Amino acid sequence: MSRLLVRNVLLDGEVTDVRVEDNRITAIGQHASIPEQLLEGDADVVLDAAARQAIIPPFYNAHTHAAMTLLRGYAEDLELANWLGDHIWPAEAQLTEEDIYAGSRLAILEMIKSGTVFFNDMYWEQTATLRAAEEMGVRAEIGLLHITGPAGQPNPRSQASNAELLAAEPGTSDRISIAHAPHSVYAVDQATLTRVAADVAESGRRVHIHASETAEEVRDCLALHGLTPIGYLDSLGLLGPGTILAHCVHLTDDDRALIAERQAVIAHMAVSNLKLCSGFFHHQQAHRAGCRIVLGTDGAASNNSLSMFGEMKTAALLAKAQAGSPLAGKDHAIYRAATRDSALAFGIDAGVIEEGRVADFLLVDLDNPTMVSDHSLTANLVYSADPSVVNTVVCDGRVLMRDRVVADEAEIIERGREASRRVAQRR
Amino acid sequence: MSRLLVRNVLLDGEVTDVRVEDNRITAIGQHASIPEQLLEGDADVVLDAAARQAIIPPFYNAHTHAAMTLLRGYAEDLELANWLGDHIWPAEAQLTEEDIYAGSRLAILEMIKSGTVFFNDMYWEQTATLRAAEEMGVRAEIGLLHITGPAGQPNPRSQASNAELLAAEPGTSDRISIAHAPHSVYAVDQATLTRVAADVAESGRRVHIHASETAEEVRDCLALHGLTPIGYLDSLGLLGPGTILAHCVHLTDDDRALIAERQAVIAHMAVSNLKLCSGFFHHQQAHRAGCRIVLGTDGAASNNSLSMFGEMKTAALLAKAQAGSPLAGKDHAIYRAATRDSALAFGIDAGVIEEGRVADFLLVDLDNPTMVSDHSLTANLVYSADPSVVNTVVCDGRVLMRDRVVADEAEIIERGREASRRVAQRR
Repeated sequence: MSRLLVRNVLLDGEVTDVRVEDNRITAIGQHASIPEQLLEGDADVVLDAAARQAIIPPFYNAHTHAAMTLLRGYAEDLELANWLGDHIWPAEAQLTEEDIYAGSRLAILEMIKSGTVFFNDMYWEQTATLRAAEEMGVRAEIGLLHITGPAGQPNPRSQASNAELLAAEPGTSDRISIAHAPHSVYAVDQATLTRVAADVAESGRRVHIHASETAEEVRDCLALHGLTPIGYLDSLGLLGPGTILAHCVHLTDDDRALIAERQAVIAHMAVSNLKLCSGFFHHQQAHRAGCRIVLGTDGAASNNSLSMFGEMKTAALLAKAQAGSPLAGKDHAIYRAATRDSALAFGIDAGVIEEGRVADFLLVDLDNPTMVSDHSLTANLVYSADPSVVNTVVCDGRVLMRDRVVADEAEIIERGREASRRVAQRR
Repeated sequence: MSRLLVRNVLLDGEVTDVRVEDNRITAIGQHASIPEQLLEGDADVVLDAAARQAIIPPFYNAHTHAAMTLLRGYAEDLELANWLGDHIWPAEAQLTEEDIYAGSRLAILEMIKSGTVFFNDMYWEQTATLRAAEEMGVRAEIGLLHITGPAGQPNPRSQASNAELLAAEPGTSDRISIAHAPHSVYAVDQATLTRVAADVAESGRRVHIHASETAEEVRDCLALHGLTPIGYLDSLGLLGPGTILAHCVHLTDDDRALIAERQAVIAHMAVSNLKLCSGFFHHQQAHRAGCRIVLGTDGAASNNSLSMFGEMKTAALLAKAQAGSPLAGKDHAIYRAATRDSALAFGIDAGVIEEGRVADFLLVDLDNPTMVSDHSLTANLVYSADPSVVNTVVCDGRVLMRDRVVADEAEIIERGREASRRVAQRR
């Protein structure tokens, strides 16, 4: 059993100690109140926060394409069709598994440095991303990618990598889960979606899908199926508590009611929706309809950051501006959507600092200028903090970053840069 | 004469050396090409970037209320009238000069750490802010605050501190300038605005004013004067190249044409406008009308960050989303609005790295994960970077931060926190 002791850390404004055994928080209390056998002497690792750091839940990123760090800044400020057709897709078509491994490591490094310990990923050659997450100690839900051609034929590249992913699954840790990731209702035919629904019913896997991201997608789905994307997914049995609906920018009132009823999860990507001009997600309406809402960054080509700090702030600002009321997008609700609610959506017993919970947490520096004044820790985290406030990252009881140092950082950066340059040179 | 040599730094993708004498860049070139007498031997300070840092212009923040760092997170997610009337104004009424000095230092620390070397400030007890800027080595334009009561009587607090500010002016460095800062057309009576215009014509001082921030302000001005705030300011002779119009959220086509014709400057605050639900600034329309647009953060109570990185990104995203086109808010234009165009607006001969220019610059770390891939430095700065990429800040030829260390940081944080707690305790 590994033992970790965090000393003199602020939890809800009180200086306390937090004890971790293996991957669980086993005791929280003032030093004197911690039983003798849990004291410093027998801990493998002791982190002393010297009353200058707070312990808070880390972030759970609900929608990513991690390896797209290789395309960060690659093609900017272009019309969507031009951006995708002439730049992103041709570059992606030539990515090798080695590239995707390098890009995923770069993404995970950026995530750790900004306090994120989990990402829900959809991409090609997913075993490379799985391997990167396993090695670097974070959690990930990796998608079995489903994309079909115009005649309904499965994409050979995704078929091959799905087979590899399923073969790799038995050897993975508890930190890794595998979901179905049909790309969208427009990129996957009905027969395939039906097969996914059947497997979901049997296996209990979650479903990760882009849904109602653009007005065009909704219009086309209505024309083809007589249903909105949300209605169509429900008609196929694909809408449930394990369904992660990425984007949901264009929802009807009926869509919102249905999502709430089925307890499906909306993954909201405020930055990406603005950058790609997808439209404005109606945060307040979805919240009032009782929908579960969590936050994600999307990939680095359309954000271009993987920091959940920026995502929280943009989500809060946008909710207010769109509702025309500062009462929308309240800091506590936004913070919860990026932490506890997102952890819950992916079945992770964390997102709150309590005895018995899985030991995922951050130590954040309270002496960072963005954290002063200290009238409200939550407001500071949502509206003013940046990744530099994150001093220490613990995931599943293991220290992934201490004093902002992550293992192998220089090598990850170098390999990532090399891979990104290969991508540019191939074009 | 002080001499600074920056070795092995990337400028437009080439490794080069940059020589500074006193406060000017005097030579740029590969090491071999720098004349003997400018070599390392006689430099007082040598910064070696080891080909891992780029030299770029710093940020010039066009609209702030620096000392409002004391109210960061103090009252969040409230309706505007409640927020101002019940929380912000009563707290501000009790701020002492010592508080404002502590809050201004905290703001300047945060600005330096996020690469900002200049701020255009409007607040109470401005000599305290001036003193903080002088001591910490940044540039500032400090406002002579004009606010009048319902019967046109001048505010005694602003009158007293304006007199102090004018008395202090002769002793200030070239880094400090003093402008007129009539708060807004609704908080200052016509006689005072006319007196300000007369002094501006004589003294050449710039004018810093909130203008067309809310729909209510425009409606009231039309009712009272038969003119929009922009038209009203022009009728008083207050619209010229030295006028900084903060916000400009609610402009008519005529307003935009007039601003462009007079070469007045729009200070755009994307984050604050969203947070306070002021409305959506029409970036593309103002740009197409030929208006000069620069960026600012506003105060920490309505942002709540003073980082121009967040401001650039939000401005770019919002311009795109509102225009419905990714071609709006292009990264190069946004970056320029935060650097060169803003420096120009305040008469600072900087904002570009060239021989002969004033030596204001940043060294940014290219090995930060947010800067990889490196397909586009500008895209990375606008869309993915956070303040942690800023390694070194040079203002007016002087090093204000090296390896992210700023002088007296711990003391500034401590004094700022104490002041912010005094503010909360007084209520």
